[in-house]
Amino acid sequence: MTKSILITGGARSGKSALAERMTLTLGEPAVYIATAEAFDDEMAARIALHRSRRGPEWRTVAAPLDLAGALRDSDGGAPRLVDCLTLWLSNLMLADRDWEAAVADLCALIPQLTAPVVFVTNEVGSGIVPDNALARAYRDAAGLTNQRMAVACDDLWLCVAGYPMKVK
Amino acid sequence: MTKSILITGGARSGKSALAERMTLTLGEPAVYIATAEAFDDEMAARIALHRSRRGPEWRTVAAPLDLAGALRDSDGGAPRLVDCLTLWLSNLMLADRDWEAAVADLCALIPQLTAPVVFVTNEVGSGIVPDNALARAYRDAAGLTNQRMAVACDDLWLCVAGYPMKVK
Amino acid sequence: MTKSILITGGARSGKSALAERMTLTLGEPAVYIATAEAFDDEMAARIALHRSRRGPEWRTVAAPLDLAGALRDSDGGAPRLVDCLTLWLSNLMLADRDWEAAVADLCALIPQLTAPVVFVTNEVGSGIVPDNALARAYRDAAGLTNQRMAVACDDLWLCVAGYPMKVK
Repeated sequence: MTKSILITGGARSGKSALAERMTLTLGEPAVYIATAEAFDDEMAARIALHRSRRGPEWRTVAAPLDLAGALRDSDGGAPRLVDCLTLWLSNLMLADRDWEAAVADLCALIPQLTAPVVFVTNEVGSGIVPDNALARAYRDAAGLTNQRMAVACDDLWLCVAGYPMKVK
Repeated sequence: MTKSILITGGARSGKSALAERMTLTLGEPAVYIATAEAFDDEMAARIALHRSRRGPEWRTVAAPLDLAGALRDSDGGAPRLVDCLTLWLSNLMLADRDWEAAVADLCALIPQLTAPVVFVTNEVGSGIVPDNALARAYRDAAGLTNQRMAVACDDLWLCVAGYPMKVK
Repeated sequence: MTKSILITGGARSGKSALAERMTLTLGEPAVYIATAEAFDDEMAARIALHRSRRGPEWRTVAAPLDLAGALRDSDGGAPRLVDCLTLWLSNLMLADRDWEAAVADLCALIPQLTAPVVFVTNEVGSGIVPDNALARAYRDAAGLTNQRMAVACDDLWLCVAGYPMKVK
């Protein structure tokens, strides 16, 4: 069975850079599966920053919604980095998709993959309870997604200030 | 002396399910001490979900305010799970009780108990500083409660995506 | 080379008390480098609380902006505790200083110091994405500062409910 890794942590905790290093230890070249869409200038700037940091050893694939499809299509060779699950979840919810079914499908796919995969996700539940119901629903969905993905993946790391702590 | 365990973590990090498993390893049947009150539909749904997950090996006791009393009354046999301390703290603050005295009483009680107890609490201080003073006061109170409970309990675990990390 | 330690954690997670204990194990008396300014009553109360907890083995120096200067001026003997970096960052941003240059200068200074130093910082990125752009910018800056300081320091600890977890 191939290796699957989940990396979680707060915003700007260095998860992406850590995940890139981990992915490249699993093989080169590697595939970067981006779930981000450049809705606004702030997001476009963040995407550009991430892309500029990655070198020519990366091929980029966009998968804002059909993450399982992108993993199947890119399977069989190079390691993949999915960055990130919480943005994918947000895309699914905004598009009014059944995110719980999508997460279940993704978790069922992981043990069938033959090439390694590293997933980046976010901790969003360690602040004060949000005022609005939508933010609370998103927070709940992100937490449940993280729990299910942690069961499905071989390894789980918590990233703190750029350094990894092994959880599972 | 009996075993006392504190489990902390973000919202939807899988703390309750982890705490239920830990409690049942300490003995069966077990007592579930619920601090939640069903103020609204969202909370009622969350309580029903938690209850449906627990099986017939659990007896449920409600203790929105008098947690020390519920621990004394249920002492002597089965292990207890208290879920959760931050909700209890919120109940105390809303009822205008002296929460610092209540926390001090609880911490003093723990070493006198004869049956094991597992406490669930929440990390609420790892987001941006809240705008309003009430949320900041609650955040401070929750953090101080966690610190005092961590000293009073034998073990401290941080729950990340459903998996435990030993802290103390 | 001298010892440099970075301690991170949520608000009210017991970081300051932990950092004080760690600093005193490195030598006594010690220097407390405070980045806080008493802008309002809430902050003044917090500063007074922190100061009252520290005993006569501490000498206090204020450094709301020129942290590198305070470290250079106090170098050569007693260990220093800097509490905290996120407040310093906030002071720099409010004063419209180039915080990235200031962080780079600080990181470059650390290996040149001869007396030990313990830095306290905050985790602010594990809640829901803030509504306003200023809070997001601050969250990003704090996360990047933590990453850079974690590289520059010898040791990195995550404080959970008053107890330390070794990260680096």
